[in-house]
Amino acid sequence: MSASDAPPRLPTAVISRKGVDRVRAGHPWIYRSDVTEFHADRGDVVEVRDGRGALLGRALSSNESQITLRMLTRDATIVDRAFWRERLVSAIAVRERLQFDATAVRLVHGEADLLPSLIVDRYADVLVVQTLSQGTEANRDLIVELLVELLQPRGVLLRNDPKVRTLEGLPQEVVLAYGEVPDVVEVREGPLTYRVDPWHGQKTGLFLDQSENHKAAASYARGRALDAFSYQGGFALRMAPLVQHVLALDASADAVAAITANAARHGLANVEAREANVFDALREFERADARFDTIVLDPPAFAKHKGAIPKAMSGYKDINLRALRLLNPGGHLITCTCSAHVDEGMFGGIILAAATDAQVPVVVVEKRMQARDHPVLLSVPETYYLKCFVLRRAA
Amino acid sequence: MSASDAPPRLPTAVISRKGVDRVRAGHPWIYRSDVTEFHADRGDVVEVRDGRGALLGRALSSNESQITLRMLTRDATIVDRAFWRERLVSAIAVRERLQFDATAVRLVHGEADLLPSLIVDRYADVLVVQTLSQGTEANRDLIVELLVELLQPRGVLLRNDPKVRTLEGLPQEVVLAYGEVPDVVEVREGPLTYRVDPWHGQKTGLFLDQSENHKAAASYARGRALDAFSYQGGFALRMAPLVQHVLALDASADAVAAITANAARHGLANVEAREANVFDALREFERADARFDTIVLDPPAFAKHKGAIPKAMSGYKDINLRALRLLNPGGHLITCTCSAHVDEGMFGGIILAAATDAQVPVVVVEKRMQARDHPVLLSVPETYYLKCFVLRRAA
Repeated sequence: MSASDAPPRLPTAVISRKGVDRVRAGHPWIYRSDVTEFHADRGDVVEVRDGRGALLGRALSSNESQITLRMLTRDATIVDRAFWRERLVSAIAVRERLQFDATAVRLVHGEADLLPSLIVDRYADVLVVQTLSQGTEANRDLIVELLVELLQPRGVLLRNDPKVRTLEGLPQEVVLAYGEVPDVVEVREGPLTYRVDPWHGQKTGLFLDQSENHKAAASYARGRALDAFSYQGGFALRMAPLVQHVLALDASADAVAAITANAARHGLANVEAREANVFDALREFERADARFDTIVLDPPAFAKHKGAIPKAMSGYKDINLRALRLLNPGGHLITCTCSAHVDEGMFGGIILAAATDAQVPVVVVEKRMQARDHPVLLSVPETYYLKCFVLRRAA
Repeated sequence: MSASDAPPRLPTAVISRKGVDRVRAGHPWIYRSDVTEFHADRGDVVEVRDGRGALLGRALSSNESQITLRMLTRDATIVDRAFWRERLVSAIAVRERLQFDATAVRLVHGEADLLPSLIVDRYADVLVVQTLSQGTEANRDLIVELLVELLQPRGVLLRNDPKVRTLEGLPQEVVLAYGEVPDVVEVREGPLTYRVDPWHGQKTGLFLDQSENHKAAASYARGRALDAFSYQGGFALRMAPLVQHVLALDASADAVAAITANAARHGLANVEAREANVFDALREFERADARFDTIVLDPPAFAKHKGAIPKAMSGYKDINLRALRLLNPGGHLITCTCSAHVDEGMFGGIILAAATDAQVPVVVVEKRMQARDHPVLLSVPETYYLKCFVLRRAA
């Protein structure tokens, strides 16, 4: 048998003992420092083996990212068309069973759906997809084809503009992958509709991860309400029918305009949207001795990296302290953090410190998290990024 | 002015610097070791003062318990009939706003309703009350009178048989305080009714703290279901209409008989209740290669005191590991701990360890807690005693 008859070498990565431990612990990511041999082209699905050659599973690979391997399987399962199809079917089925009262839903949430670095959001009849690593990028035509087959969308847009793609040596781009995707898609969340721009909106268009918390907040809303860091007004508009007046604050003039327009479209005359720096506005309310019965705090992630944690903690404490001072007895504060680096324990500590300083008795009514179409992978605590406490000032 | 004309000395407690810090931190309990002077009769409401004589608030007092003071106010507010009435009105109003779909609700949850050591549960037209300290015991006639005035119950039963009363030098007793309380009260939780014995049932009759989790579990239930440590079958009966078959396991023959009878009353033919040691039963299922699509684990508190934590952790790990192994891919595990000594972080760690050993990918769909009529006092982390994770086996 000549050398040319030898079977082609399969793409393979050999990982260190530490890497093996990570795989066994259920972590989907293996870092470059734990890869001892790597034979693969850009984005190949590789066989992952330990130092003795035993197969640990198959993974998406990247020759640029620090995250060299993203585990797809933990056995000998072949990663072929049928494999991708089954994973997508399973993720979609989970959402169908959740029966969200909305036409905007995350269908695939990356690692937590065992489809690492893949995001698929449904906005009515349009799909917005992100392939965030070389591995999903290499399979993107297949993924789009399967999504079209399974869901028959009007169009599929690749919103591949997140910065994280540059770590993979991939371009930041927005590409129409199938059919047509209009500039404005109308989606419904509960009783409200939103006009979303899939091409340019923040994230993939809306903050879907708060959809269930919007509904929960409405169940506590009454009296005078405040929605701070309101973005498109998901909390403010949902609370409006239940309160006397709701004030939405956001630093972005576009967000304020969107809320105002949407309130008008829905005939919600008690919604007032105002462009403001929330920190300054809360201080002013305090000086003016203002009071609210319902307050929502949904700030952007103050801690985008570990170094920013101390400053973030002080920012969260500041707004929560002021909000508690502005709250009438019996009133509710719905307070969120979407910083993955601020875990639930840290956030609870911040709120306790704020309540102690405010010298008001506070009870925790609910501890909520990101919506259930954004599940948390147990083995990766950071995937529990959105924490949302419902607090009541007891007296 | 003669000595006999001097105003009577008001019941007073003076507390140490450490005690003052605790009060400032919002803690409702001051221990005997932090009380430097104590002039009060059994169960008096006392003025709480610091070493310089400044008034910090008023508290229920006990001359026997290690918990000498239970803070009622943090200012000069007088603790009179109007005070008790207002606190009760406020607690009741909170429950009305929650709009539970049930006729069994906790109306007063002690410290978290700023009514320390007082429990009031409503079972249809009957109230079941616990006065668990000398302070609430001393005010029990007033409390019963106010509850009758506010709620017009058919009867009020004092279920003062918990052992904790002995620490206060109070008898363990069950006393009819007003009207009539039958041996069996029918209450409704969602679509189901239960026959509760207010005189002899566990706790005050039902496990009200799981009411919202029963409903949540039903939203995930399908296929073959298992309810382990089922007590009166709150999970099993609620899941029954949605599953093919549900098996309820409990160590108590009475519980098994109650479930069987209640399933028959509701025409739920797919409920099977079996008297069993759950640890043994899970092992047997594993040997028999049984599989379930929905599993509920709601064990009694394995850690009733701190010394029991290590053994409790190993018990929780054991049942969770086995449950994960018995779960079909895509299936849900609803797993609870009601040990105050096992906090959420510890419980999360146990579940992660179980998932790692079981070598199955697990996502956290929801992190739930005790029902909202059992709120958590932010300043007393132990009041967050019931943790309930909804997990899904991802593949």
